[in-house]
Amino acid sequence: MKRTIDVCLSPALYHLYDGSDSIVVVIDVLRATSSICIAFHNGVRSMVPVSSVEQSFSYRSKGYLVAAERKGEMVDGFDMGNSPFSYMSDDVKDKDIAITTTNGTHAIEVARKNAFQIVIGSFLNLDSLANWLRGQNKNVICLCAGWKNAVNLEDTLFAGALAQQLLPDFELNNHRDSVLTSMYLYDLAKDDLQGFLSRSSHKKRLSKLNIEEDVTFCLTPNQTDVIPAMKGDSIFKLDVMQSIG
Amino acid sequence: MKRTIDVCLSPALYHLYDGSDSIVVVIDVLRATSSICIAFHNGVRSMVPVSSVEQSFSYRSKGYLVAAERKGEMVDGFDMGNSPFSYMSDDVKDKDIAITTTNGTHAIEVARKNAFQIVIGSFLNLDSLANWLRGQNKNVICLCAGWKNAVNLEDTLFAGALAQQLLPDFELNNHRDSVLTSMYLYDLAKDDLQGFLSRSSHKKRLSKLNIEEDVTFCLTPNQTDVIPAMKGDSIFKLDVMQSIG
Repeated sequence: MKRTIDVCLSPALYHLYDGSDSIVVVIDVLRATSSICIAFHNGVRSMVPVSSVEQSFSYRSKGYLVAAERKGEMVDGFDMGNSPFSYMSDDVKDKDIAITTTNGTHAIEVARKNAFQIVIGSFLNLDSLANWLRGQNKNVICLCAGWKNAVNLEDTLFAGALAQQLLPDFELNNHRDSVLTSMYLYDLAKDDLQGFLSRSSHKKRLSKLNIEEDVTFCLTPNQTDVIPAMKGDSIFKLDVMQSIG
Repeated sequence: MKRTIDVCLSPALYHLYDGSDSIVVVIDVLRATSSICIAFHNGVRSMVPVSSVEQSFSYRSKGYLVAAERKGEMVDGFDMGNSPFSYMSDDVKDKDIAITTTNGTHAIEVARKNAFQIVIGSFLNLDSLANWLRGQNKNVICLCAGWKNAVNLEDTLFAGALAQQLLPDFELNNHRDSVLTSMYLYDLAKDDLQGFLSRSSHKKRLSKLNIEEDVTFCLTPNQTDVIPAMKGDSIFKLDVMQSIG
């Protein structure tokens, strides 16, 4: 019996999936899961995803850096928002960070209900993540964070990219077409991800924020080999997580 | 201000949409909305979509024909199931029919919560429906019935076909990528819908039911110009509905 690869296009559809024997890959390409990947690449020790701005801020008194994004922008008074570039300075090394974002942290919360294991995916760690998943004896569910539960293209494209890499070691889930949908779209888009996304909703939503550099960065595959993974309430680098048991 | 065209890929995502100023096109290509279109084309007077098999059966004593499909097959003791061919005999002329199906009637029920108007779409009435929608001063939401709330390809493709026809008279909804998703997929599939769907979930699900003829029929565009539309609890042909006020 082969393992299955499946795609959930929105957190609001996750109740249709049984993650109890699956590794759930949480995907919020623009920009939460890209930022989480690059944060660990730059030496962050742990990140705790929380659902509210207030909850994130409350971690400051425990010695955490605090990150909060709403409507695409850093919330005033926080150390960082959702831009991957804010996780690249030496200041983050060995730090713990509390983070809340519009979509990414919500998707993590939804997956925690039943996932066997949650890992963080983005174009930044695509190959590394695919290699690791191939070595596990588990089904895989790609959970796209979307935008406030609406389906978006960039997360769907990453799911398609990962699904393509995992075939033929995995079987498609026969009951759903979302994995086919994501692979067809990725095939159309792969030669020019940024061009393909130029008509998408994030473009209109985020263009006024002047984050073109962020977008280019987040769509550039394989900039790190770290795999962030949940353990308890926090995210750690997978190798660190395994060493602490 | 142009009207907008939007696509909802699953009834489980419909709560994200505001149908109060929209015509909602309910889509269950294989096979409920195709069968409804062809039923009216063959002279059916009205159809009442209901959620349970028992409820459908209870209409028999009121003089209705009763239709029920579960797991792709006609339920024993009913007059018809979900095959378009069962709505083509002279026996259906001027009849009222109560119908329950796995997905199509659920989507209608979900849309009834707030839609300004509900109409029934399928490849069978594609051009006719697009022409009529162009003449209305309303936004359009394509609601894909899917399979038990999971996204499916055939309904998404029809949404893409309709969206392509409605542009450039409508604007895409800027907040969601599902309309783009459906149009990209339709572009890939349009030259060979059946070939494109050969890898899809319905294929595996329905192949043992020996309904290849149904599938071919349901994927053949423009076999009728009827537009079934809801009024109260029932569906009528649009012109009949308008004449009864």
